[in-house]
Amino acid sequence: MASPEIEALTQALARLPGLGPRSARRAVLHLLKKRETALTPLLRALETVSTRLSTCSTCGNVDTSDPCAICADPRRDQRSLCVVEEVADLWALERSRLFPGRFHVLGGRLSALEGVRPEDLSVDRLVARLSAGGIDEVVLATNATLEGQTTAHYIAERLEGFPVRLTRLAHGLPVGGELDYLDEGTLAQALRARRPID
Amino acid sequence: MASPEIEALTQALARLPGLGPRSARRAVLHLLKKRETALTPLLRALETVSTRLSTCSTCGNVDTSDPCAICADPRRDQRSLCVVEEVADLWALERSRLFPGRFHVLGGRLSALEGVRPEDLSVDRLVARLSAGGIDEVVLATNATLEGQTTAHYIAERLEGFPVRLTRLAHGLPVGGELDYLDEGTLAQALRARRPID
Ligand SMILES: [Zn+2]
Ligand SMILES: [Zn+2]
Repeated sequence: MASPEIEALTQALARLPGLGPRSARRAVLHLLKKRETALTPLLRALETVSTRLSTCSTCGNVDTSDPCAICADPRRDQRSLCVVEEVADLWALERSRLFPGRFHVLGGRLSALEGVRPEDLSVDRLVARLSAGGIDEVVLATNATLEGQTTAHYIAERLEGFPVRLTRLAHGLPVGGELDYLDEGTLAQALRARRPID
Repeated sequence: MASPEIEALTQALARLPGLGPRSARRAVLHLLKKRETALTPLLRALETVSTRLSTCSTCGNVDTSDPCAICADPRRDQRSLCVVEEVADLWALERSRLFPGRFHVLGGRLSALEGVRPEDLSVDRLVARLSAGGIDEVVLATNATLEGQTTAHYIAERLEGFPVRLTRLAHGLPVGGELDYLDEGTLAQALRARRPID
């Protein structure tokens, strides 16, 4: 039996998505065997992330500064806001370099199955950003899943009455597709062909 | 694009066995989203392992003390030594609670393909332990792979002339099977039926 310290590390790793108990144990062995080249760099990287990164109180992005570099960048179009489910979706759109505006990270999607309700997402904060004025267009870039589309519809309802153009990413996304898994070409096409929500 | 801090953490995680670049990014997002319940516990567990665990200078086990708890335990049979490839194999045998003696971790297996030579394993230290005397039996519990068996033969040659009974785990291990993947029953049977090396 391994020591309690090793068991604790194994369990912490096993809780990560994509790692089960067995692969977590393999990972721990790798870390113990490669202290200098694997354990120490992972420890340092985690420390840095833990101490230096925080969530942007404006948009929900994760960065070393609050507001984040995107929110603080004066060259970005302040009149256009792109609403995404997760930080990963923001990163995916940033990699494509196609969206010139700013973001709003919801922190998830409405899900009866997972018990995610509107108050679990940052919808109130989105409404507050729009109430503050200066925004002309809101792109609802939720995933093309049932839950993502339900979330988009809910937000569209909440934003009724605001003088903004509500758009969503063009269909053309594969049905059931998640943004983070798409290639940049598909993403670019979907963004360029975005259209008003009826 | 994610910040350099996040990229560094993603890369450190992606180098773990069983995690590719995409699952590492998912894991990072999970850590960022669940700071209190995922990131902090993982950080603490890594810190503890990094600061408190070391390699036993006698047997190669990993523990909070050197010599390790197994080497320091006076109730364990000091006359019987079980040679394994990796610490994981030691743990697998310890879980079965069937081996009453002590261990010697080689730190790998001979492999022409991977360029692992005898001097890369702790064979000299094993010879030194036997030279110090007091050991009656050496169980060569290397994997039932070609490389594991080659390693066992090499060690058997190196231990020629020592007044010890050399045994190996009984066949009954599935061919190509690795110790760490076996159920305890198979392991127990193989250990009970261990036999002398000709
Ligand atoms: Zn921001
Ligand atoms: Zn030891």
